[in-house]
Amino acid sequence: MSAARSLGPSAIHTRSAILDLIRSSGTVSRIELAEMSGLTATSITRFVKSLIEDRLVIETGFGDPTGGKRRSLLELNPTSRYAVGVSLDDARLNYVVVDLGGNVVGQLTSSGIGQSVPSAEIDRIADELEQLFRQLDIPRTDIVGVGVAGAGLDLGAGAERLSLTADEWESFAVRKALEARVGLPVVRDNDAACAALGQYWVGRIPATQDFATLYMSNGFGMGLMIGGSVNRGASSNVGEIGHMVVDINGPDCWCGSRGCLEILAAPRAIVSQAMQDSALAEELELSGDDGHLRHDFNAIASRAAEGEERCTALIEHSAHIVAAAVLSAVNLLDLDRIFLAGPGFADAGAIYARIIRERVSGFARARGVHGVTIELSDPGLDAAAVGAATLALQYVLTPHAYV
Amino acid sequence: MSAARSLGPSAIHTRSAILDLIRSSGTVSRIELAEMSGLTATSITRFVKSLIEDRLVIETGFGDPTGGKRRSLLELNPTSRYAVGVSLDDARLNYVVVDLGGNVVGQLTSSGIGQSVPSAEIDRIADELEQLFRQLDIPRTDIVGVGVAGAGLDLGAGAERLSLTADEWESFAVRKALEARVGLPVVRDNDAACAALGQYWVGRIPATQDFATLYMSNGFGMGLMIGGSVNRGASSNVGEIGHMVVDINGPDCWCGSRGCLEILAAPRAIVSQAMQDSALAEELELSGDDGHLRHDFNAIASRAAEGEERCTALIEHSAHIVAAAVLSAVNLLDLDRIFLAGPGFADAGAIYARIIRERVSGFARARGVHGVTIELSDPGLDAAAVGAATLALQYVLTPHAYV
Repeated sequence: MSAARSLGPSAIHTRSAILDLIRSSGTVSRIELAEMSGLTATSITRFVKSLIEDRLVIETGFGDPTGGKRRSLLELNPTSRYAVGVSLDDARLNYVVVDLGGNVVGQLTSSGIGQSVPSAEIDRIADELEQLFRQLDIPRTDIVGVGVAGAGLDLGAGAERLSLTADEWESFAVRKALEARVGLPVVRDNDAACAALGQYWVGRIPATQDFATLYMSNGFGMGLMIGGSVNRGASSNVGEIGHMVVDINGPDCWCGSRGCLEILAAPRAIVSQAMQDSALAEELELSGDDGHLRHDFNAIASRAAEGEERCTALIEHSAHIVAAAVLSAVNLLDLDRIFLAGPGFADAGAIYARIIRERVSGFARARGVHGVTIELSDPGLDAAAVGAATLALQYVLTPHAYV
Repeated sequence: MSAARSLGPSAIHTRSAILDLIRSSGTVSRIELAEMSGLTATSITRFVKSLIEDRLVIETGFGDPTGGKRRSLLELNPTSRYAVGVSLDDARLNYVVVDLGGNVVGQLTSSGIGQSVPSAEIDRIADELEQLFRQLDIPRTDIVGVGVAGAGLDLGAGAERLSLTADEWESFAVRKALEARVGLPVVRDNDAACAALGQYWVGRIPATQDFATLYMSNGFGMGLMIGGSVNRGASSNVGEIGHMVVDINGPDCWCGSRGCLEILAAPRAIVSQAMQDSALAEELELSGDDGHLRHDFNAIASRAAEGEERCTALIEHSAHIVAAAVLSAVNLLDLDRIFLAGPGFADAGAIYARIIRERVSGFARARGVHGVTIELSDPGLDAAAVGAATLALQYVLTPHAYV
């Protein structure tokens, strides 16, 4: 039972802010916390007491004596709490267990959702979570929740429209279904938003550094970290960069609009362009079916990464269109740091990064004022799954961060 | 001399936050402030004392007695401070004087900057400010500063690249030059950002309502209010929606990129399309010169508003392209409220609003979750000038809000 339960909503908010200050400071004294927060020493003492009672914060020795009373230092207790993150994807499920310090302490990978329906998959995910928990030497009571990352829309009131192959995933409430099966709080968010949050947490990016994470799976999403929080917009549906209009006279998109980034440059578009070259399609054993989309795209992307000419041309074509959308986002939001994450960038991420860099450095409106770094997120890291776990930690421990 | 001067940076931040809470609450007690802020009653009492000493806040009677000690209520003292806002524009200069409550208490309009150079214009602006101050029955010491709104880029270190006709405005430091002439703090920001801030302040929009203001003058800008603050990005150059790529195969833009919103749909594009119809050009007495751009565009826009067919077609063509860019911004940021402001929308704003509404309501990704309101800002109000004045008030009184 958390000591926070006895506090009112604004006090919980303040307690969360103090916990966040301790996290971002590494080690910090109560007096420094009072200076940073503008709160009185009395308030700080009270909130810190509640955080220590909950084992979230520990005292770790003393600061330099400056003549007066010796000051004990505070820091997060990383091994006091854990959360699980799952990234839902057609081609692969990634599970990670993250501690309060953002360290990955457990991992599991299994086959993707493919054409499977929700009822079977929720059972499987619950079983795989169980299997993961058994592998870990962690008290079950210290696992605070499960975060789920996936492409799709938040429809409000718990329902989501997931971008997975089987129709049954449209307007399915993953959160509710999984919560009933695993008996832990479950939170769910867009994979791009999760990837941005994961980058922020694991990459120890300061709250003053706003940035965007462009996430590419079957489509595109953009997570925005503004002032140390994931920007959520009106309905937690921020980041639909895949439906930015990049060619006003372009082809109809399945979303109803036309000339969207996604219809022009996402894996499905690249694979259908490749299918038109029958020699190439045969050579790479492309199926052209939606069920094998990721396999087909990966085949093209990995050959492009090796320098195969036809595949390179296809990926570069996609990258030029992605670069135009990224340039538009950079101009609209005056971004100076962008991460590329997600399975779509796993094989040919370097080609995308190079072409986006060229376009943004050449044409960003504020290029005379500052550069824009375009970085691939660590490919070994599933940023979305780590971010989903972080989201669960935040949801349970610092309720203000998850609206 | 402000009582805030004796406080450290984090205390000034807290004082600013308390001032903002009082402003958004209308009237509020110290106990309510303590509840809302999470600060102790002692801290609140101390900060409120400093705000009252500065005349920024006044006590206004008492709340309902609930058995205990009667509680005095606090509110902003609207007539304690004033600021001036100036909106710089090729075609017209607007000056407004705004009090701390956001009320416009003085106004002056003069001819635009046209092809004139900075040295002459700064002198004229200083003279016109002097003239405006003389008209007002306000102690000079209560005018805290001047805000300047204009299109262009913030180049950092005080320099700006203003989008005005004469080349001399490129990399000219308006802020520094005007400050030296008027002896008051001068702040300068993008007209779109100012227009958003003005809407927020005068329209008493709550901090929880994020929104965007699309500003159209010779080009386009988008001001973003997120969490009650103007979003500033990496270098205060947020909002360059005019250089969003809407036609990846489109014509070269002067910015170096191609197919930008601005090159396709801004007044210059509309006027050159109109010039190709010589009968229309003659009828409307269009000159086609850059120096008469606003006049030419206004002639087309006002005839379109009257229903003239050829002019309506030209404005609708522009509006469809603007609508695609707005849809892209709505999808990227999950916006649910957009204001249209600026001289470009003065005559044919209703046509733009209708076409943007149609496209956004038909195709926004989150349309199943929430609607998006598209509103014309009050045409009588110069949102950019009012916002610039607000910016000056914030800069001087609540330093946290202006980074």
